Amino acid sequence: MRINQDDTIFATATAHGNAAIAVIRISGSKTFEICKKIFVSEKKNFSLDNIKSHKIYFGQIHDSNGFVDDVLMSAFIAPHSYTAEDVVEFSVHSSSYIINRISEALVYYGARLANNGEFTMRAFMNGKLDLSQAEAVADIIASHSEASHTLAFKQFRGEFSKKISKLRAELLNFSTLIELELDFSEEDIEFADRKDLEKLLQTIYSEVKYLKASYSKGNVIKKGIPVAIIGKPNVGKSTLLNLLLKDDRAIVSDIPGTTRDALEDIISINGASFRFIDTAGLRQTYNTIEVLSIQRTLKKVEQSSIVILVVDITKDTIEDIKNEIAELSEKVEELDKKKIIIAANKIDMLIEMPKGFQQMIEMETVFISAKRKENIEMIEDALLRTVKNQNINDDFAVSNIRHYEALHKAEQAIENIIEGMKDNLPLDLITTDMHDVLFHLGTITGEITTDDILESVFSNFCVGK
Amino acid sequence: MRINQDDTIFATATAHGNAAIAVIRISGSKTFEICKKIFVSEKKNFSLDNIKSHKIYFGQIHDSNGFVDDVLMSAFIAPHSYTAEDVVEFSVHSSSYIINRISEALVYYGARLANNGEFTMRAFMNGKLDLSQAEAVADIIASHSEASHTLAFKQFRGEFSKKISKLRAELLNFSTLIELELDFSEEDIEFADRKDLEKLLQTIYSEVKYLKASYSKGNVIKKGIPVAIIGKPNVGKSTLLNLLLKDDRAIVSDIPGTTRDALEDIISINGASFRFIDTAGLRQTYNTIEVLSIQRTLKKVEQSSIVILVVDITKDTIEDIKNEIAELSEKVEELDKKKIIIAANKIDMLIEMPKGFQQMIEMETVFISAKRKENIEMIEDALLRTVKNQNINDDFAVSNIRHYEALHKAEQAIENIIEGMKDNLPLDLITTDMHDVLFHLGTITGEITTDDILESVFSNFCVGK
Repeated sequence: MRINQDDTIFATATAHGNAAIAVIRISGSKTFEICKKIFVSEKKNFSLDNIKSHKIYFGQIHDSNGFVDDVLMSAFIAPHSYTAEDVVEFSVHSSSYIINRISEALVYYGARLANNGEFTMRAFMNGKLDLSQAEAVADIIASHSEASHTLAFKQFRGEFSKKISKLRAELLNFSTLIELELDFSEEDIEFADRKDLEKLLQTIYSEVKYLKASYSKGNVIKKGIPVAIIGKPNVGKSTLLNLLLKDDRAIVSDIPGTTRDALEDIISINGASFRFIDTAGLRQTYNTIEVLSIQRTLKKVEQSSIVILVVDITKDTIEDIKNEIAELSEKVEELDKKKIIIAANKIDMLIEMPKGFQQMIEMETVFISAKRKENIEMIEDALLRTVKNQNINDDFAVSNIRHYEALHKAEQAIENIIEGMKDNLPLDLITTDMHDVLFHLGTITGEITTDDILESVFSNFCVGK
Repeated sequence: MRINQDDTIFATATAHGNAAIAVIRISGSKTFEICKKIFVSEKKNFSLDNIKSHKIYFGQIHDSNGFVDDVLMSAFIAPHSYTAEDVVEFSVHSSSYIINRISEALVYYGARLANNGEFTMRAFMNGKLDLSQAEAVADIIASHSEASHTLAFKQFRGEFSKKISKLRAELLNFSTLIELELDFSEEDIEFADRKDLEKLLQTIYSEVKYLKASYSKGNVIKKGIPVAIIGKPNVGKSTLLNLLLKDDRAIVSDIPGTTRDALEDIISINGASFRFIDTAGLRQTYNTIEVLSIQRTLKKVEQSSIVILVVDITKDTIEDIKNEIAELSEKVEELDKKKIIIAANKIDMLIEMPKGFQQMIEMETVFISAKRKENIEMIEDALLRTVKNQNINDDFAVSNIRHYEALHKAEQAIENIIEGMKDNLPLDLITTDMHDVLFHLGTITGEITTDDILESVFSNFCVGK
């Protein structure tokens, strides 16, 4: 990634498609100079030389071929903008023809199309956000449940960064003292109190371990708890899935722009999200025979935290169901650690409910009629109980694989230091590991960055952010 | 359509999808009252009671569950807004979760999801635009070439409406005089000069006829000139189509948000657009055998203004080509009125060019190599020459089917009046037709509207416009 902050960048910041308006965002030192070339207002005394920040101006965009569009221009004067640079946002008619012509004019007058995430990268470069906060911006946009939304904003507000920065600053302090000792090594002076250092290292070690461990939770929050719906053909798996997905549609779900397209098979119940695994076969074929290979079923079960086993209570005996689970646990490691919910379907076709079913099966069982839409909410309750056990909503959790990796490397380096101090290794060997810890923690917040790190962080962003 | 202007409406004004920001637009008398419930700013002395129009405020949206998003709020105070009502636009993170929560909060506090085109309808109701101008807004968004863009903006600026309004006002004047005469019919006074009336009627008649006739041109401008690419299997039709479509990609076409998705098979050459008909089979199968039934080919030719007949010059003789065209003209009425371009393909496989080919075939022929991308620009030139003949860029043209229908009905009523005056029909019979003319012209500009008209105009708009 060539990081060039001198030029002025632009991009469409809104999604592409049929809509009323689109927003074109421009940032950089030449923003207003370029806008002077293309923006005209009929207002008396209007001049781009004396516009005010956070004001909206109505006018027209012209290129060398003439009139292009009536637009609203929002002006943000540095440093009072997202990037801390001069920023203009043009609100234009959402037509690709118009967006194309404006883009061409911007290029002609010296702006450059922004790279993915380049606006946010500039916000980082200019000190508006640290790196972990910048990363949270992408998570905010991608969040699909209350839990993931809350987590993303916690990171955006800097809770995580502050924690890491504080630990790092204390360690940096010790590191400096140790370097001093090395300089004066012949005089055998001890600047850094070994006991205090050990204590700090233990604190950092347990904090890093704790944050690293929170990743599995953070990942679940971010992506949703993986759920597998399994069962023999024709027991009603797809009907149940469709009911669960439909039940999720809230009052506003018919509002254009709020459709579930992007969410795929994720449902959100009381702020927690559940992600149904490998439902391609289930969703489309409402009524066809569901043929899933055994391998595929096993893979689904392995990837999930919750398994909904759908059975046909008019056909399957308790013995059958027990056999089915026994077969599963033979093939799937640690099945007992997963939550299994038995959805005993087709109660509408029963004359009377089987007695003692639940006790004999020794598993959470919900009696439903997918056909008549009965007791589906009990499945939701059962799903929700698993979240309660996981304390999904309380503390901060690491949800970014890059942070996880940095924490992991920092953890290893800390272990080396602790070991080395036990073995009374020479100071200079310890300082190498200490630099590693400082480096890896620093990459999380961006106190230390390399082009590679920036590339990996921002390449996943959309253009325009 | 229930037209209710009292309530406050909202909608997402930007397209749905993965992007940096989305814009939620709110309009109506309760806009600021509702925003007070959900928008908070940390700025000292901030109050929604003393905000200024065309100012941008940074703040946060909260609903009953707490924090939702950091947003920019653009305020437009009535009548200085698109709808002439109080308007707020929230620039939010483009996440469906966030848009959903804000939408729910807006509904909770008394706003209603806008119907298609309802913001523009309010602009019309409040006198900001006439009806034909309002309709042009949708055309602006849909425009994909310089010609269609220019035409849409001409209509938006009111050129067409002014013309119609002026004619209608003059006619209305006469109509009033004639009604007066009817009131005083026993006294045999002639308020309306018959000669002047006849003259005016002729003027209106020829203007209406002219505008009506411009529709076929307007339609071509709006939708692109229909072009059919035909030919036997394996002559290189799909390769040629793909080259033509690719050649259209300008310098900025890699800019996200400016992709050609929505344009399908339209290319724009020097501001004129050409629409390739029924290319479904051609686009995907770059190299497979193109099997098109004869019926389908004939239908394509019938729907098109330009036919590109691709032939394999290494195999087809002049006789073959002449036969192919003769066969076509037997089956397609008025083939001679269509422009036929012969694309003599595979010149790369010729040792020498056939002599006198062009003269003998007596049709515009372009010798190309689709494989080697040779002379494709000559096909474009040939396409462009047809536009030049059509004077596509000069005057205003009617491009809206509703306007066409109104003009058609007005034309018929004028013919009735002219006929009636020739036959010296009683005045009261003539006035009925005159009212018809006034009515139909009035529906174009919206001086006369019915719920049905508004419904038909705005139901094709997207929500949020």
